[in-house]
Amino acid sequence: MAGSAFGTIFRITTWGESHGKAIGAVVDGCPAGLPLSEEDIQPYLDRRKPGTSAVTTQRKEEDLVEILSGVFEGRTTGTPISLLIRNTSQRSGDYGNLADCYRPGHGDYTYDQKYGFRDYRGGGRSSGRETAGRVAAGAIACKILKELGIRVQAYTRSIGPVSIREDRFDPEAILTTPTAMPDRQADEEALAYLQKAREAGDSVGGCMECLVDGLPAGIGDPVFEKLDANLAKALMSIGAVKAVEVGEGMEVARRKGSENNDGFRMEEGRVVKTSNHAGGILGGISDGSRVLVRAYVKPTPSIYLPQRTVTKGGEEIELQIKGRHDPVIVPRAVVVMESMVAITLADALMVNLSSRMDSLMKFYVPDKG
Amino acid sequence: MAGSAFGTIFRITTWGESHGKAIGAVVDGCPAGLPLSEEDIQPYLDRRKPGTSAVTTQRKEEDLVEILSGVFEGRTTGTPISLLIRNTSQRSGDYGNLADCYRPGHGDYTYDQKYGFRDYRGGGRSSGRETAGRVAAGAIACKILKELGIRVQAYTRSIGPVSIREDRFDPEAILTTPTAMPDRQADEEALAYLQKAREAGDSVGGCMECLVDGLPAGIGDPVFEKLDANLAKALMSIGAVKAVEVGEGMEVARRKGSENNDGFRMEEGRVVKTSNHAGGILGGISDGSRVLVRAYVKPTPSIYLPQRTVTKGGEEIELQIKGRHDPVIVPRAVVVMESMVAITLADALMVNLSSRMDSLMKFYVPDKG
Amino acid sequence: MAGSAFGTIFRITTWGESHGKAIGAVVDGCPAGLPLSEEDIQPYLDRRKPGTSAVTTQRKEEDLVEILSGVFEGRTTGTPISLLIRNTSQRSGDYGNLADCYRPGHGDYTYDQKYGFRDYRGGGRSSGRETAGRVAAGAIACKILKELGIRVQAYTRSIGPVSIREDRFDPEAILTTPTAMPDRQADEEALAYLQKAREAGDSVGGCMECLVDGLPAGIGDPVFEKLDANLAKALMSIGAVKAVEVGEGMEVARRKGSENNDGFRMEEGRVVKTSNHAGGILGGISDGSRVLVRAYVKPTPSIYLPQRTVTKGGEEIELQIKGRHDPVIVPRAVVVMESMVAITLADALMVNLSSRMDSLMKFYVPDKG
Amino acid sequence: MAGSAFGTIFRITTWGESHGKAIGAVVDGCPAGLPLSEEDIQPYLDRRKPGTSAVTTQRKEEDLVEILSGVFEGRTTGTPISLLIRNTSQRSGDYGNLADCYRPGHGDYTYDQKYGFRDYRGGGRSSGRETAGRVAAGAIACKILKELGIRVQAYTRSIGPVSIREDRFDPEAILTTPTAMPDRQADEEALAYLQKAREAGDSVGGCMECLVDGLPAGIGDPVFEKLDANLAKALMSIGAVKAVEVGEGMEVARRKGSENNDGFRMEEGRVVKTSNHAGGILGGISDGSRVLVRAYVKPTPSIYLPQRTVTKGGEEIELQIKGRHDPVIVPRAVVVMESMVAITLADALMVNLSSRMDSLMKFYVPDKG
Repeated sequence: MAGSAFGTIFRITTWGESHGKAIGAVVDGCPAGLPLSEEDIQPYLDRRKPGTSAVTTQRKEEDLVEILSGVFEGRTTGTPISLLIRNTSQRSGDYGNLADCYRPGHGDYTYDQKYGFRDYRGGGRSSGRETAGRVAAGAIACKILKELGIRVQAYTRSIGPVSIREDRFDPEAILTTPTAMPDRQADEEALAYLQKAREAGDSVGGCMECLVDGLPAGIGDPVFEKLDANLAKALMSIGAVKAVEVGEGMEVARRKGSENNDGFRMEEGRVVKTSNHAGGILGGISDGSRVLVRAYVKPTPSIYLPQRTVTKGGEEIELQIKGRHDPVIVPRAVVVMESMVAITLADALMVNLSSRMDSLMKFYVPDKG
Repeated sequence: MAGSAFGTIFRITTWGESHGKAIGAVVDGCPAGLPLSEEDIQPYLDRRKPGTSAVTTQRKEEDLVEILSGVFEGRTTGTPISLLIRNTSQRSGDYGNLADCYRPGHGDYTYDQKYGFRDYRGGGRSSGRETAGRVAAGAIACKILKELGIRVQAYTRSIGPVSIREDRFDPEAILTTPTAMPDRQADEEALAYLQKAREAGDSVGGCMECLVDGLPAGIGDPVFEKLDANLAKALMSIGAVKAVEVGEGMEVARRKGSENNDGFRMEEGRVVKTSNHAGGILGGISDGSRVLVRAYVKPTPSIYLPQRTVTKGGEEIELQIKGRHDPVIVPRAVVVMESMVAITLADALMVNLSSRMDSLMKFYVPDKG
Repeated sequence: MAGSAFGTIFRITTWGESHGKAIGAVVDGCPAGLPLSEEDIQPYLDRRKPGTSAVTTQRKEEDLVEILSGVFEGRTTGTPISLLIRNTSQRSGDYGNLADCYRPGHGDYTYDQKYGFRDYRGGGRSSGRETAGRVAAGAIACKILKELGIRVQAYTRSIGPVSIREDRFDPEAILTTPTAMPDRQADEEALAYLQKAREAGDSVGGCMECLVDGLPAGIGDPVFEKLDANLAKALMSIGAVKAVEVGEGMEVARRKGSENNDGFRMEEGRVVKTSNHAGGILGGISDGSRVLVRAYVKPTPSIYLPQRTVTKGGEEIELQIKGRHDPVIVPRAVVVMESMVAITLADALMVNLSSRMDSLMKFYVPDKG
Repeated sequence: MAGSAFGTIFRITTWGESHGKAIGAVVDGCPAGLPLSEEDIQPYLDRRKPGTSAVTTQRKEEDLVEILSGVFEGRTTGTPISLLIRNTSQRSGDYGNLADCYRPGHGDYTYDQKYGFRDYRGGGRSSGRETAGRVAAGAIACKILKELGIRVQAYTRSIGPVSIREDRFDPEAILTTPTAMPDRQADEEALAYLQKAREAGDSVGGCMECLVDGLPAGIGDPVFEKLDANLAKALMSIGAVKAVEVGEGMEVARRKGSENNDGFRMEEGRVVKTSNHAGGILGGISDGSRVLVRAYVKPTPSIYLPQRTVTKGGEEIELQIKGRHDPVIVPRAVVVMESMVAITLADALMVNLSSRMDSLMKFYVPDKG
């Protein structure tokens, strides 16, 4: 199916395999008049670039984005924006021995079952590299949100057993620590933990969190297009994510209603909530308070320890994966989460424009409205 | 927006408010030739009917479904199936005092922010009654799956602190215990816990789980239309759900790769997994093992204890909710979960038909294929 | 497939067969706050009601619409509007002899080929009765347009060889002549022509035209969602329509560019065109002048003359159709055309709201914009 | 809006402006296992290349296509196919004087009204160059259809007053005559006619026709997704098309039912029609006979004769267009028509796979079916 697109009005389509010629995205439905250049996008791609620290693969990926269409004289024209990132650092030779074997925790077997065969080089379309297209598109969504006064910020909440602590929260650490944690002490502990896992030939999981500030109340739809439903889809569509929470998430299942309900009160003439257990969404629609979502990520399935598996031909083998792999997915996935949240919100904001008859009137017959 | 529809090829549209004339659903894209009558649907609706036990509201809702179209001589014709359920037991008088006030934990405030006003009777479209349309449509999806040998079963996993235990798992209890728990002892403990909450004028949360057996490998799509992404959206679109897990869900964030990966081995000539931490989905595509998903549900927001809130006019008040409300949402929501999972799978199975050129050939040029 | 819905943001889903229990439509995405009651819709349904004159079937269809949801205290709530029309006058006995036979010009054979069998009573879903759902939904679209100062008017342009004349154009005749022609003399001539065809047991074709005044410039999208492309789909989706024109349509294929181009000039400070060969659409986007579209309708396929055809079992037979049938489709289809044009425009107007960044700014950060 | 995509299951997204860096398309939903390389696509692009004859512009456009993704070891993988065509021959200087002026017959004014400004170089997104993406995608659709035994062939039916004649129909002439007419004598007459128009600084319109052979009966959907409705949208979405016909199109509006109905008879055990006035589609679904559609194309709006128009600033001017322009659009648009028809059919064929329960059974539980 045409399953590579996301969004209704602000709609992105990503394409490309890990070891093909290039990867990219088409952003259709971006409003006209947004100032945009490669410089707005590149920093987002750089955030998912593997580095030299213990947490990321040693592969060198220079993900340079090129805008091929949809921008004229520095502003978007309202027509589709095509984003191209050439693949440069792929060594397909690394993967030849994986052509016939089903790696545990990967999509090798399921792709073969669905399509009959697959591009086995580096995971093909199921590779984490696919997310580069999402991030390039997400940078545009982030820019739109910024113009509207909406700030989206994702970061690492935990790696293995190491979690950030509220009282050490330091937003500036997000872009500077190797783990993307907003807590320098947790970062150090997580790095130590990762180092041990790496030495053991193993990998670890973690949790990432995203905050949205400045989102007006009233965004989202009842029933199937609930804002949280679309956020859940957006996040669960990121490879390796196995659970999604909104607000205090699974915790609320053990609560009493009297503990969990957020009361309302007035503050400077505005309605505000007395708490925010709900994570900023009520009945599928934003309530004007901070939106908070979390995604739980499994350990990198590519590990160096030997594993039992089978070949395409049905032979049971012991597999030893070589090559270069991140011992944890989370730090590089944080910007992917931020992108998917921003894309979901940008679309919801556009879709919402027609929710009231008086808005339509004001737009089309301003004198009468 | 047109946010009341779900699915691509098998697509349902629900409509109706809690206290309007009727509620219902249109099922578009059901294949022709499925034997279908009201008797196939009614038992599903009966499962969400409030009973007389401690766990459900004392309201009497006789949800009788009527098939208005799309079935001829006992079989579906391939054209849209319109399902109608008249509202019979609504006492709007109960809600008059809520017209101007924003109930904590409900969508009252957000609906007003989005639409400018709302149908305040019983929550209008944000009412749990909206799910009757989903269940009626879900019964049809379940019937399709059954014909294909696929079984979907949801149940209550926990209520407040009371969880079912694996070693007491009794599938027959699901449809007979008031809590919809597959564990009679947990059911009793949960009922006692609920009774206390009810006496205190409070409500409790819980968790529900759904198992899918018999789903072939290869269903779902890479990237945005991952099977788990669509399941996450489906479940998070159920009011009161705040977290969704696939397989072992958030647990995996604390695991090592060597613990979490499911190995492959051969069994009677078929590829099987040595464990199923993944919950039956790899790379967004089913792997032929059991699919397991969970949804965490907040406590019923309507409680009898007094709460602080504000009116539409901006006055701070103490609210005392009257009327009849379930002290826990989960038992009646279990069949809604089952319906949403079934609808998601039915659609994914249809979408998947065109994934290979040789399937197209076999369908259209059978002699050549 | 889920092929019974139309529109992106303003989206209608129709359902129901000619001889089922009821027919109807769900309108999803209607903005909140539109005053609406059955009285707004019924006059549109009455326009497609068969009458007693020579041009329409003698069947009595009392198409009474009931609004089941989406309206509260006389205004739309922004949630789906369910519209129900009970079938009352169906005499299925008339069609028993058609169960096994493929009527020329009808969809009997193609439905059987697609679905394996069909509801043969009165054409089932391929019946003209399906359009009652479109008209009920179209009445809501028309009301939205009216609030925005946009007028949509369809009428009969020709029946067989009889065409209306520009110099006799009388808009008031549209709703009062049996032919829905805006020309009383043409109406009389057409009636005489129809009477002869009816006496001969035959039927005739015709052309209908729709004018849109007051549509602002800038509505529609480039490339695939061109306003004229969506209008073409909308009109060709009406059963029996075999050709669609925009503006001067196929005439322009014989023209020179110098004859066909519409120049621009200034009028009271506004850009206007010096002519309107284009029918109000340039590059897929409205240009602020009158939109004009035409649809050509084939003769009613049900005729009383004997016809050669085959049965489902493969037997060649001579078919003699009985029952009650319009000798021409056009007069009753005019309101269907008007409905489809209005639905297409309402959707395009909503979709257009996000075309510019400065509109988004004005909506969400009015102080800054 | 996201208006640059077409199709439901087989879905293409085009992007790119006339004078940007590149143009292209993403084809999402192509089944896995189709042999594909640039050599399959290039001949289609070459057919829309301007030549050296009198009928086409003197611009040199080397449209070389590059496949960037979705193909591995010579076969499609089922993942999106990204197609890139670099723009090489653009001389933006030609268009500088058009930046502020609204060319008659072009989308300049309407784009400005919608988006606030536009990429004025060569028409930007409204340029005929946009169709290169459609043709590259269409080549893939054509290849799928060919594998299924379905042949699609478009050609020029008329240019100005010169029409092809049935008795001189020569299919080999389509790809060899400069006019793409399947009639060498008409080709010569049309060339003479074009030469005169060109000398007069003028342009001419024409009509193109497309035949589909081998399409099985049963393809298409009732109601809004009728096969002819989608073909009408597909064709009307091609810039400059102003009318669309199916079968004998507008002619039928003057016919009697007894003249227009196609009877059925048996031939070698199969149901066939005794005539094909309907153009192969009944009730929106293919009937197994030849599908015939026509599109009427306006004269090239860019002419050398002086025209009255206005500037963006509201000044009335006389415009003299320079540069290189085709005196007629049709011959180069023929392959665009063929592409759009093929894309529409490929999608309809995939969507149709789930129309019957027994097909689902055969696919998923072959032993039981």
